[in-house]
Amino acid sequence: MGTTQFESVQEPKYWHLKTVLNDALDSEFEVGEILPNERDLAARFGVARATLRQALEQLELEGRLQRRRGVGTTVAPPRMGVSVGPSAGEWPGADRDAWTAVGCVEAVPPAQVAALLGTAPDEAVHTVRREREMRGQSVATELLYVPPASVPGLSGTLTPSEHASAVLRELRTLGLDGDDRAVELGSARAEDAKQLDRLPGAPVLVVTTRYHSGGRVAAASVATYRADTCRLTFGDSGDLEVTHHQPDSPRAAS
Amino acid sequence: MGTTQFESVQEPKYWHLKTVLNDALDSEFEVGEILPNERDLAARFGVARATLRQALEQLELEGRLQRRRGVGTTVAPPRMGVSVGPSAGEWPGADRDAWTAVGCVEAVPPAQVAALLGTAPDEAVHTVRREREMRGQSVATELLYVPPASVPGLSGTLTPSEHASAVLRELRTLGLDGDDRAVELGSARAEDAKQLDRLPGAPVLVVTTRYHSGGRVAAASVATYRADTCRLTFGDSGDLEVTHHQPDSPRAAS
Repeated sequence: MGTTQFESVQEPKYWHLKTVLNDALDSEFEVGEILPNERDLAARFGVARATLRQALEQLELEGRLQRRRGVGTTVAPPRMGVSVGPSAGEWPGADRDAWTAVGCVEAVPPAQVAALLGTAPDEAVHTVRREREMRGQSVATELLYVPPASVPGLSGTLTPSEHASAVLRELRTLGLDGDDRAVELGSARAEDAKQLDRLPGAPVLVVTTRYHSGGRVAAASVATYRADTCRLTFGDSGDLEVTHHQPDSPRAAS
Repeated sequence: MGTTQFESVQEPKYWHLKTVLNDALDSEFEVGEILPNERDLAARFGVARATLRQALEQLELEGRLQRRRGVGTTVAPPRMGVSVGPSAGEWPGADRDAWTAVGCVEAVPPAQVAALLGTAPDEAVHTVRREREMRGQSVATELLYVPPASVPGLSGTLTPSEHASAVLRELRTLGLDGDDRAVELGSARAEDAKQLDRLPGAPVLVVTTRYHSGGRVAAASVATYRADTCRLTFGDSGDLEVTHHQPDSPRAAS
């Protein structure tokens, strides 16, 4: 056991190139700078363009590079720490909530969501679309699903603009037992991609949250975060961000 | 605001194919079944192989397909819910810990880790390698970094096999103020890829944890989870798993 174990692993060619490129990004490029085109880069490093492309894809996965439509490949800024939880004991739409509701419809949710909520497969639920910005950038989009049974006090005559806030307001009148979340890799659906300024299929981090009240799931949300620019943070303090490039100072003793 | 917004977005050709393939996976294939080769699939759906490949890549990102070395492309089982936290008030190596230590070295950590720990750039720290299995599969690998200052009671004469357990034991004698985590997308380094039975560069979920004690970061870990098979769960109950394909029943009222 030791570093010799690491060295014994055969690394593919693009992997070595990735390391070399990574060092070049550190020493020769500024954040936001546009990389030379693939032909020139391949020539400089003496590799085939297919190899170069694989290395660039890796660096994009790792958040070092960004491909931007109409711009090219640029050096990415450090990922933003985006606090996901816990917001213990708080419903969506509470005062400190970082999300903004942009609309609400009544619609039959995807089968997996109906299963999470325990609703019938053909039952329409209130579906609040919310968005989240950081530093002027759209970083996440969310659909919050609320079965009618969770918000019985909702009046039947709502304009679309009143609908979202009424659902969130009614939800907050319930006692919240707790919530739980799951994070997984996904690919951006067309409508989310557009909102996030990405191409459909771009890697995203999908956070599924269940809100428990009165012994059942009173609401569930599926949030889609840009995987290229976001690092999701979870912790004792919602304000605490773990970031590799610009580490916070250690917490003060309590 | 409504579903019309969704329909107005132009979807690329492979995106439609992905949807069609997804339905075919549901109706015609069993979990673990090997897909026909690309030539046959492209012919069946009347698309170019490049389009097919893009659609397959999307389905792999979403956890529907797995590419397995020497086997081909198979229909993936539902992702496993892997509980990440909180294990409030518990150090790594506590009784219920799902990780197994496999070795320990003293080594200078990567610069970002030294910054997290607040150690000097050239200071060696105890580095415990740990692994995590679920259902007989290796799902994650971790490096836990512990500065010597956090474990002053450690004896100087340890065999490699004693080293890891001694570090974990000493750590547990400290008061734990709390921990915080960050989740981001990464690509598997060669040594992790080997352990996880993936190719280098495969998408992984990287979880960085800081353990706070006495007003400073007493230890930090960087864990790498397979993104194709894992869904990371966070919640009030470590046992609770959110899973799309096989939803748990709602929690009982407390």
